[in-house]
Amino acid sequence: MAGSSFGTIFKITTWGESHGRGIGVVVDGCPAGIPLQEEWVQAYLNRRRPGQTRYSTPRKENDIVAIESGVFEGLTTGTPISMTVYNETQRSADYSEIAGYYRPGHADFTFDAKYGFRDYRGGGRSSGRETIGRVAAGAVACALLKELGITATAYTKAIGPVNATPSNLSPDILILERDASPLFMPGKAASDAAEEYLQNTMRAFDSAGGIIECIISGIPAGIGDPVFEKLDANLAKAIFSIGAVKGFEIGSGFLCAAAKGSENNDAFLGTKNGRAEKATNRAGGILGGISDGSDIVLRAAIKPTPSIFREQQTIGRDGCPRTVQVKGRHDPVIVPRAVVVVEAMAALTVADALLVNMGARMEYVRKFYDKNS
Amino acid sequence: MAGSSFGTIFKITTWGESHGRGIGVVVDGCPAGIPLQEEWVQAYLNRRRPGQTRYSTPRKENDIVAIESGVFEGLTTGTPISMTVYNETQRSADYSEIAGYYRPGHADFTFDAKYGFRDYRGGGRSSGRETIGRVAAGAVACALLKELGITATAYTKAIGPVNATPSNLSPDILILERDASPLFMPGKAASDAAEEYLQNTMRAFDSAGGIIECIISGIPAGIGDPVFEKLDANLAKAIFSIGAVKGFEIGSGFLCAAAKGSENNDAFLGTKNGRAEKATNRAGGILGGISDGSDIVLRAAIKPTPSIFREQQTIGRDGCPRTVQVKGRHDPVIVPRAVVVVEAMAALTVADALLVNMGARMEYVRKFYDKNS
Amino acid sequence: MAGSSFGTIFKITTWGESHGRGIGVVVDGCPAGIPLQEEWVQAYLNRRRPGQTRYSTPRKENDIVAIESGVFEGLTTGTPISMTVYNETQRSADYSEIAGYYRPGHADFTFDAKYGFRDYRGGGRSSGRETIGRVAAGAVACALLKELGITATAYTKAIGPVNATPSNLSPDILILERDASPLFMPGKAASDAAEEYLQNTMRAFDSAGGIIECIISGIPAGIGDPVFEKLDANLAKAIFSIGAVKGFEIGSGFLCAAAKGSENNDAFLGTKNGRAEKATNRAGGILGGISDGSDIVLRAAIKPTPSIFREQQTIGRDGCPRTVQVKGRHDPVIVPRAVVVVEAMAALTVADALLVNMGARMEYVRKFYDKNS
Amino acid sequence: MAGSSFGTIFKITTWGESHGRGIGVVVDGCPAGIPLQEEWVQAYLNRRRPGQTRYSTPRKENDIVAIESGVFEGLTTGTPISMTVYNETQRSADYSEIAGYYRPGHADFTFDAKYGFRDYRGGGRSSGRETIGRVAAGAVACALLKELGITATAYTKAIGPVNATPSNLSPDILILERDASPLFMPGKAASDAAEEYLQNTMRAFDSAGGIIECIISGIPAGIGDPVFEKLDANLAKAIFSIGAVKGFEIGSGFLCAAAKGSENNDAFLGTKNGRAEKATNRAGGILGGISDGSDIVLRAAIKPTPSIFREQQTIGRDGCPRTVQVKGRHDPVIVPRAVVVVEAMAALTVADALLVNMGARMEYVRKFYDKNS
Repeated sequence: MAGSSFGTIFKITTWGESHGRGIGVVVDGCPAGIPLQEEWVQAYLNRRRPGQTRYSTPRKENDIVAIESGVFEGLTTGTPISMTVYNETQRSADYSEIAGYYRPGHADFTFDAKYGFRDYRGGGRSSGRETIGRVAAGAVACALLKELGITATAYTKAIGPVNATPSNLSPDILILERDASPLFMPGKAASDAAEEYLQNTMRAFDSAGGIIECIISGIPAGIGDPVFEKLDANLAKAIFSIGAVKGFEIGSGFLCAAAKGSENNDAFLGTKNGRAEKATNRAGGILGGISDGSDIVLRAAIKPTPSIFREQQTIGRDGCPRTVQVKGRHDPVIVPRAVVVVEAMAALTVADALLVNMGARMEYVRKFYDKNS
Repeated sequence: MAGSSFGTIFKITTWGESHGRGIGVVVDGCPAGIPLQEEWVQAYLNRRRPGQTRYSTPRKENDIVAIESGVFEGLTTGTPISMTVYNETQRSADYSEIAGYYRPGHADFTFDAKYGFRDYRGGGRSSGRETIGRVAAGAVACALLKELGITATAYTKAIGPVNATPSNLSPDILILERDASPLFMPGKAASDAAEEYLQNTMRAFDSAGGIIECIISGIPAGIGDPVFEKLDANLAKAIFSIGAVKGFEIGSGFLCAAAKGSENNDAFLGTKNGRAEKATNRAGGILGGISDGSDIVLRAAIKPTPSIFREQQTIGRDGCPRTVQVKGRHDPVIVPRAVVVVEAMAALTVADALLVNMGARMEYVRKFYDKNS
Repeated sequence: MAGSSFGTIFKITTWGESHGRGIGVVVDGCPAGIPLQEEWVQAYLNRRRPGQTRYSTPRKENDIVAIESGVFEGLTTGTPISMTVYNETQRSADYSEIAGYYRPGHADFTFDAKYGFRDYRGGGRSSGRETIGRVAAGAVACALLKELGITATAYTKAIGPVNATPSNLSPDILILERDASPLFMPGKAASDAAEEYLQNTMRAFDSAGGIIECIISGIPAGIGDPVFEKLDANLAKAIFSIGAVKGFEIGSGFLCAAAKGSENNDAFLGTKNGRAEKATNRAGGILGGISDGSDIVLRAAIKPTPSIFREQQTIGRDGCPRTVQVKGRHDPVIVPRAVVVVEAMAALTVADALLVNMGARMEYVRKFYDKNS
Repeated sequence: MAGSSFGTIFKITTWGESHGRGIGVVVDGCPAGIPLQEEWVQAYLNRRRPGQTRYSTPRKENDIVAIESGVFEGLTTGTPISMTVYNETQRSADYSEIAGYYRPGHADFTFDAKYGFRDYRGGGRSSGRETIGRVAAGAVACALLKELGITATAYTKAIGPVNATPSNLSPDILILERDASPLFMPGKAASDAAEEYLQNTMRAFDSAGGIIECIISGIPAGIGDPVFEKLDANLAKAIFSIGAVKGFEIGSGFLCAAAKGSENNDAFLGTKNGRAEKATNRAGGILGGISDGSDIVLRAAIKPTPSIFREQQTIGRDGCPRTVQVKGRHDPVIVPRAVVVVEAMAALTVADALLVNMGARMEYVRKFYDKNS
């Protein structure tokens, strides 16, 4: 199936495998007239680049992006923006062994089940490198959101059992603290504790998971749809389409299951610029699938990296049991590098919802075409 | 936006408001030749009908379904199946008061923000009655899955802080126990405790939330897509598009965040009929977005009913603060009635994924057209 | 496949067969706040109702529409508008004969080839009655276009070899002349000649085809897309999705093939309200897939009704040759009744294109959200 | 809007402008296991390459394609196939003049109307170079069709008023004759006459249009959908999305409008391998939107190249009248180069319809999953 596209009006299509010529994305439906340069996109890609700390694979991947189309004299033209990152090293290792078995926790088995064979040189489309296209496209979505005063800010909320300091941080401080941490985790004490946890985990030849939180600020009220295209439903799909995500929640999330109505409802206090002012934000900024104008707050649970340097039980392509010991250079935790991926997918979802929403009222459509024609 | 459709090949479109003439759904893309009768669909609808226990609204809604098209001589014809449930009572209460303010935890404010006005006689498209269309369509999806030996079984996993007995129950026993409980919660002790919790909650004029789990059994390996159309991503969207869902997880879910790779990986033991046999199923039946043939296990967190019989702080349409006390007959907990809705949305997602998947390999396409032409 | 939907933002889904309980349509994505009443929709349906002249089937079909949802206090609410026309007579004729063979020029054979069986009581989804849903939805689209000063006007351009008077008629006169003709053909002389041709055709137990032209006036410049979603490409699909259409053209159409560039180009003279003023309109109002603000002029070729009262050569379901003589009451020409169907499909296409286009420029998006939030 | 994608399951997305870095396409949803090499794609691209005869622009464009992803060890992997053709010369002419006015018959005016500005260095997305992506993707679709014994063969049917010899040619002879003609027009006499017509046209500094016919052979019966996704409706959209197409017809096309039912119906004679055998094929292989197994025969009217070397009346971006004389190297007729583009779009449409159709009957779905799981 054509499963490599995301979005309705602001739509992206990604391509490329871990060990092919490169990775790319086509962003279609982006409005004309947004300032866009390769430097802007590169800054987002740099946040997912490995090798920046000891907690990511030491593989060297510069991941330099080229904008191939859709930008003219520094502005988006309204036509498809194609962006490519070429793989730098055409690795020619001997893959004969890994071609023959299924790594636990990976998609090797399910790829073979679906397609009958697979590009066994790496994770193929299930590789983390696939997210390069998402991040490049997300950077374009963020450029659009910036024009409207909307920001998406993700950060590491937990590494293993270590939680970030509970934060009522202002957005600016949050970003400062996040970027000061090698794990993109605000709060020095928490970040240090998480580092220690990670080092112990690595020494035990094991890997760690965690939680990423993303806050979308500045979104107007009225964005999203009441039934299947709820804004939170689309965010759920967007975030769950990232490999390794096993849980998604919004606002009070799973905690609401044990709460009472009187504890979970947010009292309305007033409105400001069309947005709701509420005593609390347990709803996470969305009521009935539609934004209320408060911050949208979402969280994703990330599983521990399945590639660990221990012997594991598995089967070969022949179905026979055997043991494997994964080699190579793997991230002991992917949470920090996935932070910008969550941010990108959230921004893509919101950008699309904003464009889709413009025809919600005849009053708007009428004014729009009066003004423009 | 056209947000009332779900699915790509097996696609449904719902319509209708709580206080309009009726509620309906059009199921398009259903294969020809599936036995289908109104009784089959009605049985699913009966599971969400209110008034069956003291834990649901005493409103009487018989919700009788009519199949208007797409079935001929007891078989689906391959053309759209339109199903309608007419609202029995055209209620003509005085709505002038509730038209003027925003109920906390409801979509009143966001509807006004999006559309400029709303059908103030009830929840409109955000009413729980909207799910009638989903359940009727889900019944058709289940008829399709039945032909392939696939089942979707949902049940109440938790009400407030009370959890169902941890279950390694066989599917048959699970269903028996579920259906013996007024809360659709397996395990008599757990169900009784949940009832007691609910009665206390109701006495305090409050409401409760909970967790629903759904198990999809019998799905072949290889269903789903590796990037944006991951099977779990589509399940996440499907379940999150149900009103009141605030969290979604699959397999080990949020627990994986604190686990280590060595604890979270599932060892492969062998294969059987093309499906993976694994020592554990923390992945919840999906690896890299594609089914591995094990049970798919998902959970949804349901918030407590926002309508409670206490005075709450809110604002009027004029933006001015005021208090409200919701009247009428409301469910103190919607979890039990939502069980069949979760089942329906899961079945719809899987049915669509199965049809979309048939062209994954040229080998299959070739055989298909050799055989049929 | 889910082939019963049309449109991206303004999306319709039709259902129902000729001999089932009824025919209906769900219009989703219609902006909130458009005045809409059943009378408005009924007026469009009345134009396709049979039995009004001797040139249509004498079957009595009142085709009374009910709006089941999506309208509150006389205005569209932004949620799905479900409309139903119930079939008045549950005909219980003996269909055993027609079940057994394939009518030439009909979809009987191809339905069996696709679905393995068919609702043999009539044309099923290939019946002309399927267009009821299109016309009802088109009436809603026309209500939207009316708010923007846009009109779609179709009329009979030719019946068999008889052409309508070449018309530079003003829209008002065109409609007057059209509605004065039993064939919806402007120009009394032409209409009379066409009637005579039809009467001769009917006496010979034969049927006739023709051409329908549609003019869309008042559309702003800049609507449509430059590549696959060209406005003319979507109009082509919309019109070609009407049964019996075998040709589609825009502007100079097939005549352009033999013309020279110097003869076919339209000179630009100036602009007015953002629309192009051109010396001629051979382009038919669309350049590069995008409207230039002139009238959009399109034509559809309609084949002669395949049901004729003569013996014809065909085969049975068993593949064996046999002859058939179609019985029943059939239109000797469907062109006049198809006029409003062409109008409806054109209006639906334009309404969707207008809504889709609102995010084409960041300048517009910025103003929109400044104004509204 | 996201208008650069085409198809539902077999979906393509194109990008790139005439004067940017390159042109490309992503083919998503192609089944795994189809043999594919760059040479196969290049052969299709070579057919649209200019400079091969005196009847196309003398610009040198080698248009060498690279497959960037989705093929492994010579087979498609089921994941996106990205193909790129880099523009060889980064032309740096002085565009200041053409930036300021609107060429008649081109999309300059409508691009400005839609996007507010345009890449004035050339036709941008409306350039003929955009079709490179279509042709490369069409080559992949043809590789899929080849596996099923289906062919799409397009050729020049008319140049200006000169028609190709009426052909009941066998497919092989048709292709031989076509490829022997510099205009891709079968029949030496006709081709010579067309050449003479073209030379006269060029001497008059004018340009010519024409008609392209495409024959799709070997398609099974039962492909396509009865309502909006009719196979002919999708072909109409596909072909009309090619710039310069102003008319589309299938089978007897516009001629049917003047025919009688007794003349236009095709008598069924029998069936062979599930396909209809008919006395004639006026339907063009499609009945009720679904293939009957006969050849699908379609035609497209192509307008004369709007760029002519004569002074023409137009307006500037300021709206003021002025004259222009187009410079540069332009094709005096684009019909021959568009032949392969029509073939590509037809193949893409059919490939998608074939994959979409596989779930039409439960009987097929059941067998499919019995076999595979």
